[in-house]
Amino acid sequence: MSDYRPPVRDMAFVLDTIVDLDDLTALEPYSHVDRDMTAGILDEAGRFFGEVFAPTNRVGDEVGAQYADGSVRTPDEFKPVWNKLTEAGWTAVTGSPDFGGHGFPKAIGIAVSEMMTTGNLAFSLAPMLTGSAISLLERHGDDELRDHYLAKLISCEWTGTMVLTEPEAGSDVGALRTKAEPNDDGTWRINGTKIFITWGDHDLADNIIHLVLARTPGAPPGTKGISMFLIPKFLLDDDGNPAERNTVETVSIEHKLGIHGSPTCVLSFEDATGYLVGEENKGMRYMFTMMNQARLEVGLEGLAVAERAYQQAAAYAKDRKQGRAPGATETSPIIDHADVRRMLMTMKSLTEAMRSLVYDAVASEDRALHGTDETTRLAADQRLALLTPVAKAWCTDRGVDVASLGVQVHGGMGFIEETGAAQHYRDARITPIYEGTNGIQAIDLVTRKLPLEDGAVVNAYLDEVHDTVEALGNHPEFSSMRDELSAALDTVRKATERLAGAEDIQATLAAATPYLEMFGYLAGGYYLARQALAALPESNDPWMASKIATADFYASHLLPKVHGFAPSVGADASLVFSVPDEHFGTAR
Amino acid sequence: MSDYRPPVRDMAFVLDTIVDLDDLTALEPYSHVDRDMTAGILDEAGRFFGEVFAPTNRVGDEVGAQYADGSVRTPDEFKPVWNKLTEAGWTAVTGSPDFGGHGFPKAIGIAVSEMMTTGNLAFSLAPMLTGSAISLLERHGDDELRDHYLAKLISCEWTGTMVLTEPEAGSDVGALRTKAEPNDDGTWRINGTKIFITWGDHDLADNIIHLVLARTPGAPPGTKGISMFLIPKFLLDDDGNPAERNTVETVSIEHKLGIHGSPTCVLSFEDATGYLVGEENKGMRYMFTMMNQARLEVGLEGLAVAERAYQQAAAYAKDRKQGRAPGATETSPIIDHADVRRMLMTMKSLTEAMRSLVYDAVASEDRALHGTDETTRLAADQRLALLTPVAKAWCTDRGVDVASLGVQVHGGMGFIEETGAAQHYRDARITPIYEGTNGIQAIDLVTRKLPLEDGAVVNAYLDEVHDTVEALGNHPEFSSMRDELSAALDTVRKATERLAGAEDIQATLAAATPYLEMFGYLAGGYYLARQALAALPESNDPWMASKIATADFYASHLLPKVHGFAPSVGADASLVFSVPDEHFGTAR
Repeated sequence: MSDYRPPVRDMAFVLDTIVDLDDLTALEPYSHVDRDMTAGILDEAGRFFGEVFAPTNRVGDEVGAQYADGSVRTPDEFKPVWNKLTEAGWTAVTGSPDFGGHGFPKAIGIAVSEMMTTGNLAFSLAPMLTGSAISLLERHGDDELRDHYLAKLISCEWTGTMVLTEPEAGSDVGALRTKAEPNDDGTWRINGTKIFITWGDHDLADNIIHLVLARTPGAPPGTKGISMFLIPKFLLDDDGNPAERNTVETVSIEHKLGIHGSPTCVLSFEDATGYLVGEENKGMRYMFTMMNQARLEVGLEGLAVAERAYQQAAAYAKDRKQGRAPGATETSPIIDHADVRRMLMTMKSLTEAMRSLVYDAVASEDRALHGTDETTRLAADQRLALLTPVAKAWCTDRGVDVASLGVQVHGGMGFIEETGAAQHYRDARITPIYEGTNGIQAIDLVTRKLPLEDGAVVNAYLDEVHDTVEALGNHPEFSSMRDELSAALDTVRKATERLAGAEDIQATLAAATPYLEMFGYLAGGYYLARQALAALPESNDPWMASKIATADFYASHLLPKVHGFAPSVGADASLVFSVPDEHFGTAR
Repeated sequence: MSDYRPPVRDMAFVLDTIVDLDDLTALEPYSHVDRDMTAGILDEAGRFFGEVFAPTNRVGDEVGAQYADGSVRTPDEFKPVWNKLTEAGWTAVTGSPDFGGHGFPKAIGIAVSEMMTTGNLAFSLAPMLTGSAISLLERHGDDELRDHYLAKLISCEWTGTMVLTEPEAGSDVGALRTKAEPNDDGTWRINGTKIFITWGDHDLADNIIHLVLARTPGAPPGTKGISMFLIPKFLLDDDGNPAERNTVETVSIEHKLGIHGSPTCVLSFEDATGYLVGEENKGMRYMFTMMNQARLEVGLEGLAVAERAYQQAAAYAKDRKQGRAPGATETSPIIDHADVRRMLMTMKSLTEAMRSLVYDAVASEDRALHGTDETTRLAADQRLALLTPVAKAWCTDRGVDVASLGVQVHGGMGFIEETGAAQHYRDARITPIYEGTNGIQAIDLVTRKLPLEDGAVVNAYLDEVHDTVEALGNHPEFSSMRDELSAALDTVRKATERLAGAEDIQATLAAATPYLEMFGYLAGGYYLARQALAALPESNDPWMASKIATADFYASHLLPKVHGFAPSVGADASLVFSVPDEHFGTAR
């Protein structure tokens, strides 16, 4: 039995109110999609991921991926579920119809991905990384590579990996040293050792397609001299089937805090045969094209682990009886205690805010790809660029917070591994780190995204928030929410202006994370307010009334955090740099 | 080799500036203590806990306490260190000289405890719980119990436990069902099963002295019908030596998220022989007398795990090179990157604020016990009562935050267990839960501590903060710190008044945690400001200048968080209660 029930109605509500799915599916490539079809997909996915996929989560943690004799073995429960997953086509929802995909909008794909990720975060990384490989090949692979690999990746008969990191090249990818030298037949010989390769080896699929960053002879230093290679675990025979083993060795896997079901591999390439993707020295540029997508998917992981932790805590709080709440005549379920309920409201409202943020960003990606005109597409692309680091960092930091609250709601039982709440706390912790640490996201936001179009992109988004403030003003019952959102918007506007005017790059960098935090909390309040506005006409429906109550809670309890970050944005960088190195940590 | 270097100078600085140790040691029972002696103790303790005790931390996590055949076995490395610990008398620093203790102030004891706890949190719980048993016996045991048990507990030849929790009686201790029936010889027969017993069994000491809560025949229901019994693992022979095994069985130990070195036991008492401590039905009252101490010690654990995580992150950030900081001509250690340095400043300033808060509260305990007159003692006791829930909850929540930042500073390496950063993140998570969840601390603060003397106790503390605002005003270089502290104080004062005037108990309970959070952040800013004021005359010393810089950072980056909690304090409780149960977690 799974303890995860996909919140299909919540997802559909966000697709309706935040994404505006009717508007999106009016776009040409999505004209085959309608409301009924979407509802059907969500329901069917909800059953599959709740009943079939999610039950693998505990065993994935407890048994984990195992390494022996050069190979990775996944828990026994994974393979049959993987087969059902791929056979049902759940990994191909957004894939190109030219290669067997279903061609749905990414905004619908993200809802399915949410269920997969909440069902089993560690397991979901295999299709997630495969999706990144698909994106790269779709955009940058030549016809031959696309023909040979794309359909098998879209169906997840084969999986893909992203092979970037080396021991001395983590956040600084440009420092990598793996070498690629040309063979006479147009292929390349790759040599080097790579670390932190998620699902770098496993026993689920017939082949594993590595997309590897390496340097060719005479390449310029840094990120400008990096090329991308496709290196299959098994080379293909003339019929395109996996045949000879390529010289990619799995050296070891890591012993990690969480996501035990996901093998994190050290891979050694020893004269491995690779195929150049696109042109030489453009590897980093290509990586950036799929980076928005990958970062949004990690943002989604923050939401997913939060949703799982929240559902588990809510179920426990309804079941566990302890003490008497004021006015109660017998022992109360702990959900009746105000402080426990406050924690659950925090978890609920943050999770729902995250869902809106991630889905909204993904919808911008759809519109950037398929908007009706160039101006619309560019605006959507820039909006996506702005929201991506926020969605990645804010949602993953909040995912850690919510998972931590989930442990707290369980009290002493939360600290016992068998309860399962601790797994979410452990799993969540990787998400602020990988796919660009949250510090890097914040730096991306303040140094690259805020300056877009001289600030017009961020201002357009803040104007959206302003429109919602105005809309709230039309309803007396939302006056408190309006005031809080308006005040938070004002604080973020001022901080944005201070950063735009900052001359000291160090001050900007030191303010990056506090700024991203305030932006994220504002965005959360904005989306929940839009949900409240959408729910208002139907507020006789208790479910809709709860949406309004959730937005009210957030506006009063969480949105004001925005103001706490204000003094550190635009502050003198010396506040961060005045303590000399030797006084950190070991002063006696 | 240990990676922990006790911050002896920081500790001495807090004892000097916050505790006012000269004033404290002027009190009668501490007249044998002087500055040189204190410095000597701290230095010697620093060597022992840094070089001998702290290196047991990793093995304690990796091997952990093991259970087999009804007994708990600790890691092999523990026993020799335990012997050195007890032989050197480090567990007896504050113990009564009448029973072999050294009679030092608790404020000095807490510094030694900090080193022990930072050295190995899991291991430190054995002496910590023993300390609680000592307190209870000192105050409530009769002469016979004191004579038989106290000296052996103070020397830690034997250890003590607190045996409260049952499956249905966690936070609600009053629901417990363990029974005690009188024997003819004045002893009692105890029957029941207890869970979550920290160090409930082990192989380090010759005896284990359980202090067990149970009900006697005809006892009133709830907390008013609970009595306390001393139940030794081994009954004593006529010479007072451990002899016959008592019928206390270790049923199992828990598989926990963290503190693996500390066995968490299920104990079964089957006609076990026990001795009544004090009078019947006063067990809960007795527990409360040692609760301040135990809660402060758990607050100390938040500080300790933060200190350990901070030291490790700082060392890594100085060593790990990645990317170039602005202006750098070669690869920079990551401590040079503004966002990493911001994280380290956050860790540093929070840790130093926590140290001041915990030491200050403990010093109030010393003054409550030994102040020169009744008025002083009562005021100190009430100040201690006020600060205890804040120190417990705020420091443990911040301990989790700092440990999480410690993982983040390490990037991908932080998620690998061998790095050790993850252990702190796992270990820290129990501290907001045990010894009264942080929600219970917050409720204690707003419902029992704020009303003390009609608010005069909290106002006296806020007046202290005000005095520091005034003192900052005398120094132009502190004008920004003054403004932030003043604004934060104003916000907390208003929230305090709103709570005092609140009529709806649910609104008060819903606001409890946000209020405790804002109070804690204010207290942190207050203490660091006092440190800055004390450092000012010596600011030519770079170490002292760093104290000022740390306070400046906190005032700008962390203290303003106070304002973010304001709207939820005194808000309508309906914000927390408007969503019906069925819309939590599983709505479809």
